[in-house]
Amino acid sequence: MRALVIDRTGALSLRDRHKPDATRKECVIRVTAAGICGTDLELLRGYAGFEGIPGHEFVGIVEDAPAEDRRWIGRRVVGEITVGCGQCAACRTAGRGHCDVRTVVGIRSRDGAFAEYLSLPASNLHALPESLPDDTAVFVEPTAAACRVVEQVEIDSHTRTAVVGAGRLGLLVAQVLRDCGVRPLVVGRGERGRSIATSLGFDTATTDASALSRAFDVVVDATGNPHGFAACARLVRPRGTIVLKSTVHGETQVKLANLVVDEITVVGSRCGPFDRAIELLDSGRVDVTPLVESIYPLEQFREAFRTAEHGLKVIFAPAQLD
Amino acid sequence: MRALVIDRTGALSLRDRHKPDATRKECVIRVTAAGICGTDLELLRGYAGFEGIPGHEFVGIVEDAPAEDRRWIGRRVVGEITVGCGQCAACRTAGRGHCDVRTVVGIRSRDGAFAEYLSLPASNLHALPESLPDDTAVFVEPTAAACRVVEQVEIDSHTRTAVVGAGRLGLLVAQVLRDCGVRPLVVGRGERGRSIATSLGFDTATTDASALSRAFDVVVDATGNPHGFAACARLVRPRGTIVLKSTVHGETQVKLANLVVDEITVVGSRCGPFDRAIELLDSGRVDVTPLVESIYPLEQFREAFRTAEHGLKVIFAPAQLD
Repeated sequence: MRALVIDRTGALSLRDRHKPDATRKECVIRVTAAGICGTDLELLRGYAGFEGIPGHEFVGIVEDAPAEDRRWIGRRVVGEITVGCGQCAACRTAGRGHCDVRTVVGIRSRDGAFAEYLSLPASNLHALPESLPDDTAVFVEPTAAACRVVEQVEIDSHTRTAVVGAGRLGLLVAQVLRDCGVRPLVVGRGERGRSIATSLGFDTATTDASALSRAFDVVVDATGNPHGFAACARLVRPRGTIVLKSTVHGETQVKLANLVVDEITVVGSRCGPFDRAIELLDSGRVDVTPLVESIYPLEQFREAFRTAEHGLKVIFAPAQLD
Repeated sequence: MRALVIDRTGALSLRDRHKPDATRKECVIRVTAAGICGTDLELLRGYAGFEGIPGHEFVGIVEDAPAEDRRWIGRRVVGEITVGCGQCAACRTAGRGHCDVRTVVGIRSRDGAFAEYLSLPASNLHALPESLPDDTAVFVEPTAAACRVVEQVEIDSHTRTAVVGAGRLGLLVAQVLRDCGVRPLVVGRGERGRSIATSLGFDTATTDASALSRAFDVVVDATGNPHGFAACARLVRPRGTIVLKSTVHGETQVKLANLVVDEITVVGSRCGPFDRAIELLDSGRVDVTPLVESIYPLEQFREAFRTAEHGLKVIFAPAQLD
């Protein structure tokens, strides 16, 4: 099969790879859509030291399955990306998503979705309603990640919220927050992101709007860049909460004393509930129409990644034309 | 009166200063004991850009008071260190301790306790029981700060806790945690701190005990140095909590992506409840006897600060001999 592969030097190329089969007790999924995420861009900068096929946001059709999971064959699915052992201390105390020996689709010791096929255990899969087209369903994984924020932080109608980063993830987080009854301010550097936020009904501001400093109870960093944290730290009120969604390669300079003096809480936030995400997307309460940048075949991966670097959601259609 | 003063260049010297009076609607307190805290050492490194008289852990006797507060005269007291306006957004949402225009005894725009006298509003004062001697009561402020941890983070008998830093503050935090029914591990670099922790009944470890990595639900940074955060990040389990108590000057390199991937919560923690601290010290549930390093007159401030740099609690007795 055709697949994009990150090699030891960190370079990305299109290669021929063995198609996965169902002998590993996993379902084999033909990938019909796969989105490029900020984390994929960071992988190419060296984040997580990943080698293999990247891509963890996908939609596909189950083509083969182990004997006990054959009912999945033919179903259109999305998939949770972490496979844990279920045995270790981390699995027991923090859940399989935090397993010490976990593999993660396209991020850690497991091939991902920028290929014609991938494999995953049936327990990771969620069947999609027919009403949800591929170019919407490909947002299930990042929308679930956005939903994780409101699992971790209590939001009520009085909570003053801001989302820093008017990109792929930020515009999902803002919509998930709105679904909880608040009206987050969307703070972004780029005019285009802010204009899409406006079209989605949000108030917007640039990151240097100093009048907003120390004004928000909850501020979410969805910038995908190392400067996001400092912007959030300016916006959050004393005793407020910063939620981190960006996985940025490398280290960031942080004035830890400011967190102490202002008693700020910082919450790292990763993967979230797929069922809730599917429902939000299917009902239209999260609208991803303005977030689709363009759709590419795998062959045009260089242009696709270039576009994703400064644009919104770029989608591969690896096996659409088979 | 005699007072230690930090000047514009950051240098500390003993000077003659005007004694405060009660015309500012504040009580005038003769300082009988004042402790050197890690924050005082950081002030001398430039933290907070403070100029004036440092010192914020004190015991004293009210010598003068405004007309409406004359009942305080003659009482032996400790004092909460922050004076807020009560009007601004931060006062309303986060409490006076976080006032935008606050003054803080010996830290921010207000003279502190390394002097024969200081002044504070009566509303900041707590009367001391006679049973609590000065060299114990001088620990009320840092013990209150230690108590703040358990106001912010839920601790039950199953919570696995570690305190990083076996110094002045760490040994208070460990005892406050123990009072909540847990047995924290005390992690420290210095043999002396660990040995005092052992004498107080705690298990101890050195910071490089890699077997302990990712093993604790709650890890408190009480190191007072910029390397404390990384040590805490190694010890905390996925989805666990790091509580920051150190106010360190400057910036620290933090791998923010690790907080995201492991969904760590970081909680900045500052001042705490004086009543609870007085009760813990008076009942002996927090034992500070092994924490007293030595007691100095103001004149020996150079030796006092040198001792505090590597030792436990150094106490000034500014007006003891009057």
